Amino acid sequence: MAERTAGILVIGNEILSGKVTDENSPFIARGLREVGVELCRIVTIPDEVDVIAKEVRTFHQSYDVVFTSGGVGPTHDDVTMEGIAAGLDRKVIVHPELEKGIRTFIKGEVNAAQLKMAEVPEGAVLIQDDNMGFPTIQIENIYILPGIPEILRKKFDALRERFQEAPYHLRVIYTCWNESAIAGSLNQTMTEFPDLLLGSYPKIGHPEYRVKLTIESKDEDYAQRAFDRLLTLLTAEAIVRTE
Amino acid sequence: MAERTAGILVIGNEILSGKVTDENSPFIARGLREVGVELCRIVTIPDEVDVIAKEVRTFHQSYDVVFTSGGVGPTHDDVTMEGIAAGLDRKVIVHPELEKGIRTFIKGEVNAAQLKMAEVPEGAVLIQDDNMGFPTIQIENIYILPGIPEILRKKFDALRERFQEAPYHLRVIYTCWNESAIAGSLNQTMTEFPDLLLGSYPKIGHPEYRVKLTIESKDEDYAQRAFDRLLTLLTAEAIVRTE
Repeated sequence: MAERTAGILVIGNEILSGKVTDENSPFIARGLREVGVELCRIVTIPDEVDVIAKEVRTFHQSYDVVFTSGGVGPTHDDVTMEGIAAGLDRKVIVHPELEKGIRTFIKGEVNAAQLKMAEVPEGAVLIQDDNMGFPTIQIENIYILPGIPEILRKKFDALRERFQEAPYHLRVIYTCWNESAIAGSLNQTMTEFPDLLLGSYPKIGHPEYRVKLTIESKDEDYAQRAFDRLLTLLTAEAIVRTE
Repeated sequence: MAERTAGILVIGNEILSGKVTDENSPFIARGLREVGVELCRIVTIPDEVDVIAKEVRTFHQSYDVVFTSGGVGPTHDDVTMEGIAAGLDRKVIVHPELEKGIRTFIKGEVNAAQLKMAEVPEGAVLIQDDNMGFPTIQIENIYILPGIPEILRKKFDALRERFQEAPYHLRVIYTCWNESAIAGSLNQTMTEFPDLLLGSYPKIGHPEYRVKLTIESKDEDYAQRAFDRLLTLLTAEAIVRTE
């Protein structure tokens, strides 16, 4: 089943130095799953033009959709636009529409830092959000999102319907046995349903269950048959509940 | 200043599909910062041998220390050992000491899934933790950690003193001005202190401040002088408080 693939590039020294916990890639990961897009890779890198450029080049070629998070403000460490431009062999330009918007918004004298917010890779497209002042910037298959979680979430939510694919169908089994005891049944299920997405997630100290099993496919019937088969293999005494 | 570098490889479909939020790389990032190690990259990839192998090869060559998180259990989707072995052009072997430990622990008959827990890349070293049953597995510069956060944290904490480097010295300024208004002062500071690690982090809706500035260096005097200089450039009215 060919499906749309995605990659997320998290840009920011603050993540790598442990000052800030990245909330953005988990948010985008959940959102992509909901619209049925396969997220293949998340890479977190520092605010360095060369590093960003190299990664952007790879992501641009490897995935259908790419999201970047962070590094788009007005200060010295905001080099994402420069990095993306370099990765796509383009220049950074001042976008006339963004400049106009900034000058209208600020009214008085516009300083260099404010004008930096109008800089984009040449050829970038502005996506106007109805309920947001500042447009989302897209270049090729890359959506450039800000690092501030509140803004990123609004922007991603405004974009997400354009990525809608066939959804994943998920069933869940909670078992009171440990992974070593159920591994044989999981292997047997994978042999019979080789295209299944089957996850096994042990939980320490949970009062109710030891392992959560996720059974997934874009084919609802396939997921259901695999779910039924695994239930039979595990036997009733192993199963706490299902979803 | 040459310092030890690190990379983190997060392995697990559950992270990419948004089912589980990665708590491990933020934990390791904070820990590495505390011991003065420079974390250069975090990459999250699926449970696929080829993908793991390729990334391991790059990380092994690029960073002084590498941590992997996840994919080391007894089930079908636990392929980290195989991936690491392939990345280092080694075989997967059953480690005799691990096998002995598992047979002692289980007493009765040992099944294939349980024995899988004894598989490691050939040449792996066991690091025995005093307060943990299962040893941490190291091969070359790679520390192989489990995905379960409670266990990963204990294992990392048991390891961390071996990575101790010169610490970072951090000062913080909270300002009530926005980034555009202070960008000039930040640029000026970077011109005068080119080796400074200067972070600028806007916060939306905070009652007290608009931007948090972090001033860091391994040279305590350098950080202090940059901090003093930036305070002067910003002027007293911009500053809410410092740390």
